[in-house]
Amino acid sequence: MKKITGGVTAAKGFQAAAVAAGIKYKDRDDMALIYSEKPCVLAGTFTSNVVKAAPVLFDKKVVEESPYGQAVVINAGIANACTGREGFSYCEQTAKAAAEALSISENAVLVASTGVIGMQLPIDRIVSGIKKLTEGKQGDLEAGTRASRAIMTTDTKNKEAAVQIEISGRTVTLGGMCKGSGMIHPNMCTMLAFVTTDAVISKELLTKAVKEDVVDTFNMISVDGDTSTNDTLLVLANGMAENPEIRENSPEYEAFREALHEINETLAKKMAGDGEGATALFETKVIHAPSKQDARILAKAVICSSLTKAAIYGHDANWGRILCALGYSGVIFDPEKIELFFESKAGRIQIYKDGVAADYSEEEATKILSEPEVTVVVDMKNGEESATAWGCDLTYDYVKINADYRS
Amino acid sequence: MKKITGGVTAAKGFQAAAVAAGIKYKDRDDMALIYSEKPCVLAGTFTSNVVKAAPVLFDKKVVEESPYGQAVVINAGIANACTGREGFSYCEQTAKAAAEALSISENAVLVASTGVIGMQLPIDRIVSGIKKLTEGKQGDLEAGTRASRAIMTTDTKNKEAAVQIEISGRTVTLGGMCKGSGMIHPNMCTMLAFVTTDAVISKELLTKAVKEDVVDTFNMISVDGDTSTNDTLLVLANGMAENPEIRENSPEYEAFREALHEINETLAKKMAGDGEGATALFETKVIHAPSKQDARILAKAVICSSLTKAAIYGHDANWGRILCALGYSGVIFDPEKIELFFESKAGRIQIYKDGVAADYSEEEATKILSEPEVTVVVDMKNGEESATAWGCDLTYDYVKINADYRS
Repeated sequence: MKKITGGVTAAKGFQAAAVAAGIKYKDRDDMALIYSEKPCVLAGTFTSNVVKAAPVLFDKKVVEESPYGQAVVINAGIANACTGREGFSYCEQTAKAAAEALSISENAVLVASTGVIGMQLPIDRIVSGIKKLTEGKQGDLEAGTRASRAIMTTDTKNKEAAVQIEISGRTVTLGGMCKGSGMIHPNMCTMLAFVTTDAVISKELLTKAVKEDVVDTFNMISVDGDTSTNDTLLVLANGMAENPEIRENSPEYEAFREALHEINETLAKKMAGDGEGATALFETKVIHAPSKQDARILAKAVICSSLTKAAIYGHDANWGRILCALGYSGVIFDPEKIELFFESKAGRIQIYKDGVAADYSEEEATKILSEPEVTVVVDMKNGEESATAWGCDLTYDYVKINADYRS
Repeated sequence: MKKITGGVTAAKGFQAAAVAAGIKYKDRDDMALIYSEKPCVLAGTFTSNVVKAAPVLFDKKVVEESPYGQAVVINAGIANACTGREGFSYCEQTAKAAAEALSISENAVLVASTGVIGMQLPIDRIVSGIKKLTEGKQGDLEAGTRASRAIMTTDTKNKEAAVQIEISGRTVTLGGMCKGSGMIHPNMCTMLAFVTTDAVISKELLTKAVKEDVVDTFNMISVDGDTSTNDTLLVLANGMAENPEIRENSPEYEAFREALHEINETLAKKMAGDGEGATALFETKVIHAPSKQDARILAKAVICSSLTKAAIYGHDANWGRILCALGYSGVIFDPEKIELFFESKAGRIQIYKDGVAADYSEEEATKILSEPEVTVVVDMKNGEESATAWGCDLTYDYVKINADYRS
């Protein structure tokens, strides 16, 4: 597997565009289009929140019922959530306008929105935006990057990833982009993420690969514990790599899974590290757990703990809060048996052992915790399973951003 | 039921004391004693965290195995959590020293600690503190207040409550105190709370009353989602009111339950309102829910949502975040059916109805949200059950307090 530069336009036959449609932001791109020259098989996972945004309801239907997808229209600024029947009709109107402009089937268009909840979309501006997006779509990497910038809300960095693998002598490319900074605690899937590939793969197998992978990638990040109304991951495969179709339980499927995992994990980590107000990516690795599920629950409890997140911001080796979070996670374990370590580029130290503090230097701990990527390793000493979760520190800026997001 | 001034010394026969023992703080009281002239029947609930502080393990045993309790020794500054066998032996030594100084049975002494996790107690200072506490103990209300101040950590206000009821012509008094400001998300019980009463009641019935009541009081508050290692509620009843013993399913039991509920709810609300960095008490009332359990889960999801808490701090009527929190709570409902209201001393407005924003004035909403006590009413329109949860807003000061608590 080779990591390459690029995003949703990295794979063959995919184009993208961005435009300043004036949905809510001024003087910046706020609509994006992903388009495939050929129809794509589709897979998607969506929020588990019972309050589902209109685009989530719309896309679920497309993913389940349409044989193919060929375009995704995304807007930032307004989430089209809690907007009732009117909001849903804007999804239909968006898809219709895009299908006409692109001369493709109406049920091959997906839509996604991100931003404030409860406001209606200005559908006239959406429709004029679609026209410009269609005219401006291009297949170069720069077009993908512009699209990834257009879907940002409180994000401070655009988020893209791309890899290439060889399948039976053909080069298969996967690329993706995502956005997400607050209301990030995906459950089935993350805020908005889009992965494109030119692989030849069936809808069933693509769906399986996606479902298997999100539990260890997008579902393992959290910024603030709030599972959004709009969480959406869409994966489009247009088959233009012309590889022999990827079959289940084959080495080719493993290679594809690994590539998909690399894209999903990279995007998920970028989202966690760019959490609202964050100054650090906060990773928790649980090792030697009795089950995979236990490992996941424990890792996620630590990266979700407000107190631990605030301590990470303060570069404070307050391991008691980590132990506390593990303790209330719901997993049963013997606190006297486990061991804790901090690690980062600046080094690695043991901080807890045999039920009490390990003998470590606070100065060294602070040095390790002052890096932009910080890891807690939790050794459960009780099995062979492991899991990793990613979050960020809790800062003044998180409060600032969210105390008055709407104005 | 009559609300009266006072705390743990309000009921007959209870004394208290406070002393500056220099455990970790300087120039302030940091140890407290609650003492009953007569042995008390005991009830207690403790943290559900599998990482239990030494005093929790110690007190659980006393509550379960001792016929009576007569004294509680509490220290602030160090939590005696994650301190291994050494930490547990300090509980034993504390109880022994207190029993000797008070000339009571060693297994009638309970201990409680609050503060930083992972440090060992300076047992010599604890023992000299006990001597001074024993000498200084008094039965007036002021002694109870001094005790309630001595157990504060990041709390900004001491927290006491007391009520009187009549049982068969005898005046029965209940009083309590608690502390708690961060790491507050009780599950079975809160940080540290102590309730004393002179009622004549059996251990079994007292235990039943306490267990029934905490699910709607202490377990319905949250400051930061972190369930502490030290959560403890102890209730001591010394029988000195000389009422005929309170029997199950009697009007007297109902009166006692109501009085206990008043104390617990008052203390729980004080804790939520004094959450670390808080500027407002944030209450969520769920009404017309299909079950009590659903109502509790929904109410708690709203007061736990970081995004909603930040919006409350910003006096921002961001009802989408409330709906989002209800949606990921785990309770299934139809978002189009429910209704949302904001209320406070400044008024009441409907903010959400029929799946979309209600027609309200943002200016009025901001006025309502600018009060020190703010309520969200969630009308599920699908049953007869209700529940209330209490939290606080998320502020810069929460981050400030917790980014470097240990230094």
